[in-house]
Amino acid sequence: MELREELKSRASYFERELERFCSSQDARIPARLREAMDYSLLAGGKRLRPVLCMAGAELFGADRSSVLPMALAFEMVHTASLIHDDLPCMDNDTLRRGKPTNHVVYGETLALLAGDALFLYAFETALGGLLQNGVDPKRALDAVNLFSQALGPSGICGGQVLDTDEASREDRETFVTDIASMKTMVLIRAALCSGAILAGAAGEELKRLMEYGRCVGIAFQVADDILDVVGTQAEMGKTLGKDAEQDKRTFVLVHGLDGARKLLHELTQTAVSQLDIFGEKAEFLRELALYLENRTR
Amino acid sequence: MELREELKSRASYFERELERFCSSQDARIPARLREAMDYSLLAGGKRLRPVLCMAGAELFGADRSSVLPMALAFEMVHTASLIHDDLPCMDNDTLRRGKPTNHVVYGETLALLAGDALFLYAFETALGGLLQNGVDPKRALDAVNLFSQALGPSGICGGQVLDTDEASREDRETFVTDIASMKTMVLIRAALCSGAILAGAAGEELKRLMEYGRCVGIAFQVADDILDVVGTQAEMGKTLGKDAEQDKRTFVLVHGLDGARKLLHELTQTAVSQLDIFGEKAEFLRELALYLENRTR
Repeated sequence: MELREELKSRASYFERELERFCSSQDARIPARLREAMDYSLLAGGKRLRPVLCMAGAELFGADRSSVLPMALAFEMVHTASLIHDDLPCMDNDTLRRGKPTNHVVYGETLALLAGDALFLYAFETALGGLLQNGVDPKRALDAVNLFSQALGPSGICGGQVLDTDEASREDRETFVTDIASMKTMVLIRAALCSGAILAGAAGEELKRLMEYGRCVGIAFQVADDILDVVGTQAEMGKTLGKDAEQDKRTFVLVHGLDGARKLLHELTQTAVSQLDIFGEKAEFLRELALYLENRTR
Repeated sequence: MELREELKSRASYFERELERFCSSQDARIPARLREAMDYSLLAGGKRLRPVLCMAGAELFGADRSSVLPMALAFEMVHTASLIHDDLPCMDNDTLRRGKPTNHVVYGETLALLAGDALFLYAFETALGGLLQNGVDPKRALDAVNLFSQALGPSGICGGQVLDTDEASREDRETFVTDIASMKTMVLIRAALCSGAILAGAAGEELKRLMEYGRCVGIAFQVADDILDVVGTQAEMGKTLGKDAEQDKRTFVLVHGLDGARKLLHELTQTAVSQLDIFGEKAEFLRELALYLENRTR
């Protein structure tokens, strides 16, 4: 399997469904709000979370289309968190994926509300869609429950607070892992496992998948931190030490570049070893973990 | 029944449960975030939405404690929407219920995140709590689905966008009703009806309750608009006359003071008439509609 092509094909499938969804939205939604939501939703990106959600379902024999509402929900909340992260009172970013950020185009008020709306529309889309797809209610409830746990004060919102906290903690190693867990890992893990739960995953198999998701989720942030440094060095000519001095709590800052690379490799190996019980069915997830370890962007 | 006392007693029950909930929250939540969330959650208020949620459940024979997670969720999202409404990029209010607003105390960044966290924690609380209470999964799914529809782009978020829209619509009468429906009514109606759904409400009875909720929900906004003009600042706990000053679309602006009072009365009468099929069981909701019509704060 050429993983790069496979990923692209899965993301393209989702992209088409997302476009279809956006073009058929509820007419009761105010036009300006709809435009602001769609602007960020359709601005591209890896679509990693929906791809994981669909892969989780397929691992347990379900069709990817059956979990599409859940996959859409993950991309919505991911997009919502990016819109709010970019706001002037947060990171004050003007560029995202090569395009002006939401508040640059639509203003702060509408960007704030578009973020709120996407956070909440995610639940409406997941619950309404799963009910319509006739998914077993208990499975739907469990999946959306896992989804919700990844978002709130002990999920991405909590991670943002830790990350913007001026007071640093002394246990730097645990702290950087805590931030990565809440900001990045929980949503990646929930995407994979909620898809699996909707398809009937339970017991030991679900436990293994949760551990795979945990390792890949943290590894994803470690790789991001590494790329941030390597990319910066190549493009900006900054020295590593200088970057680390200015930088926030990153894995590279705490472990050094070599230490971070070692951690990334170990996490990936642990992730892959969780998949043994699934045999060949888990080939995509196995390749994906290795691909994410070696990604260059 | 002395309705004022009855309301107070029901709100007090919820207040105690809310305090207990806040004091036993998840230890994984960052302390600063927890403080900012609790500050606004525990800042008082009518607790109308949770009271309605519990009343909906009791009308169908369930114990109010069984729907407590859902009642908490309604108060959380209501609080979240107030925190975001008060932000500098929105209404830029410094006072709410007689206390400094969230961003005045905790800064814009944390206030934004506290609002996000409360929106999302509401779902975690409702889903996790209902699962734990052993509520029928299909009922839980339907109730949380109704809840989610009241929040997103065709609910309170959409209402906020309409309300902050500079371009006015020519059909002022319909427009002011649309805004009130999305901003206020849907959440009040959903609070009552999701409680009822959790207790088994369906068919004609649920339909009547939805219509009661619609009428009382819009009436609530009409009364607010009237009180903004004739109430006293001490009673309302917020800056009065601001709506009129900012030339917002209020029922008083569109219908005049007498017209708004007439509309309020008609809506209340229609609401009360929906309750006939419930007989004496609906006494509290009957009295509540009349009480809300004549409230002075």
